[in-house]
Amino acid sequence: MEKIFITGAAGFIGSNLVDRLLYDGKMVVGFDNFSTGQDEFFESAHKNPKFKLIKGDCLDLPELTKAMAGCDFIFHFAANADVRFGLDHPGKDFQQNALASFNVLEAMRINGIKRIAFSSTGSVYGEAQIIPTPENAPFPIQTSLYAASKLAAEGFIHAYCEGYKFEGYIFRFVSILGERYTHGHVLDFYKQLLEHPEKLRILGDGTQRKSYLYIGDCIEAMLHVITLGTAKTAKHNVEFYNLGTEEFVQVNDSVRFISAALNVKPQLEYTGGNKGWVGDNPFIFLETKKVRATGWKAKLTIEQGIARTLKWLQENQWVLQRR
Amino acid sequence: MEKIFITGAAGFIGSNLVDRLLYDGKMVVGFDNFSTGQDEFFESAHKNPKFKLIKGDCLDLPELTKAMAGCDFIFHFAANADVRFGLDHPGKDFQQNALASFNVLEAMRINGIKRIAFSSTGSVYGEAQIIPTPENAPFPIQTSLYAASKLAAEGFIHAYCEGYKFEGYIFRFVSILGERYTHGHVLDFYKQLLEHPEKLRILGDGTQRKSYLYIGDCIEAMLHVITLGTAKTAKHNVEFYNLGTEEFVQVNDSVRFISAALNVKPQLEYTGGNKGWVGDNPFIFLETKKVRATGWKAKLTIEQGIARTLKWLQENQWVLQRR
Repeated sequence: MEKIFITGAAGFIGSNLVDRLLYDGKMVVGFDNFSTGQDEFFESAHKNPKFKLIKGDCLDLPELTKAMAGCDFIFHFAANADVRFGLDHPGKDFQQNALASFNVLEAMRINGIKRIAFSSTGSVYGEAQIIPTPENAPFPIQTSLYAASKLAAEGFIHAYCEGYKFEGYIFRFVSILGERYTHGHVLDFYKQLLEHPEKLRILGDGTQRKSYLYIGDCIEAMLHVITLGTAKTAKHNVEFYNLGTEEFVQVNDSVRFISAALNVKPQLEYTGGNKGWVGDNPFIFLETKKVRATGWKAKLTIEQGIARTLKWLQENQWVLQRR
Repeated sequence: MEKIFITGAAGFIGSNLVDRLLYDGKMVVGFDNFSTGQDEFFESAHKNPKFKLIKGDCLDLPELTKAMAGCDFIFHFAANADVRFGLDHPGKDFQQNALASFNVLEAMRINGIKRIAFSSTGSVYGEAQIIPTPENAPFPIQTSLYAASKLAAEGFIHAYCEGYKFEGYIFRFVSILGERYTHGHVLDFYKQLLEHPEKLRILGDGTQRKSYLYIGDCIEAMLHVITLGTAKTAKHNVEFYNLGTEEFVQVNDSVRFISAALNVKPQLEYTGGNKGWVGDNPFIFLETKKVRATGWKAKLTIEQGIARTLKWLQENQWVLQRR
């Protein structure tokens, strides 16, 4: 892994990985269509001669193929991460997650690049019967277009690993938190409390149980596993890992953490029901024994991750004006 | 279910369903791009005023949407069924199975049609660890582009059932045999033995264990389950059923059945290895307790299904010249 190509490089996870790989002395090509990415996240990277940024879209296969040439490892992070409003525009998940991922595989095949890591999601387990949910959970039912489109991408990655001898790493994330977090309920709550510290509107009844992982721990986990090269010896040349902490919190807990960190005491207004929206999963908690068995372990708790996120949001309020 | 729309209507399974539904007095709209379908299969249907044929492609969403208007149930059978040569043209499975299925869902949504049955495959279980393989087998690894593309379609059907309150029936087929069978190893063996009855080339070592189901039993199973309406009461409005018999055969057994039926004694030449090709699954045997619990049961054995297939091929040798 010497020259690394990252799709979605200007996003939350992508840009953190860019900085980490540059710090490790690697050559990095960032690829992003800037539909939600932020050039500000490359403030440090732009000063590094080992970083190259290409503005482009994964839906444009010739452009993607050309951009990727000469790289030896692909992190495919570009995605429509808007889970909640999927039903308003179903084509978006199909195009930006399923088709874009297929294009990444095709661009790799055309270039003869065989190593890929993919950011999937714990949502592919749907409303899991087994919690904490292991990687080999029973064949799930997809409850969101987002998860369906990520599952589609996973399947094609498998088939390329088996058929073309790719080496694939699929990471099923819980929600990721930390510096450059630009999307999700911590941001929503923070924005609301900036506007009106006295009240907070919460989707659902607040008892939804969710898991979070700090961005630094997430990146560490991926690089740890890839460096071990576990997929090289896997039966079908592909490995899967759930990434998360060994805990979960209720939305109500996270409201408490956020309120305490901001020193506010809002009146809580619940929209009701055990789901925030259609397709919201009332309980996500992934079994992470498999990745921990490789020697990785999360360093930050969920509460610490939320604290870092809030600190970053307070220092980077410009991000609230974006999108 | 009064006016039924069938994609892939001119194919093996589609055309048999057309005839069966017309026999039941239903209105049927057949939709096919005739890339592999045969107009001869509509010999009887064309005489029935309740049958309408529309030549079109599922990749053309406006055309598909228009064709489907006014129907109340969709059987989505159109697919690239060429499992073996998937790696020669990976885009074909993505387009014709994943994207085409997404278009069918979109055309339904636009038309306000909510009931769908889908022909998936036992291949989505990959090289299953549990055999016979139940519907809730552990989360599988896709070993072919065909299976990956069918899995992608399954996931989007789930998400539409959950998100838009569709009613979905997903049938995971073993290989289907019988009248109008136009693709697969029985045809390959039959063609070979017509050309040179003294020898037969077999991919792999002949010990691959496969399952088959007779087309009449397959159609009966689907209509039985849909009539019961089991998906209406399923948690996420979608139900899954493996369809197959309670037995499997080795490729060698099926060679024996075919040789006996044709009264030939060929020299057998094996290409070797326990797989016929990359992505071939050396053992497919699905657990069918779930569908049998609804009251359906296969009437024909695999050997009887092969016999019917050979009889039909002998009486319809024109089909050997097609494609």
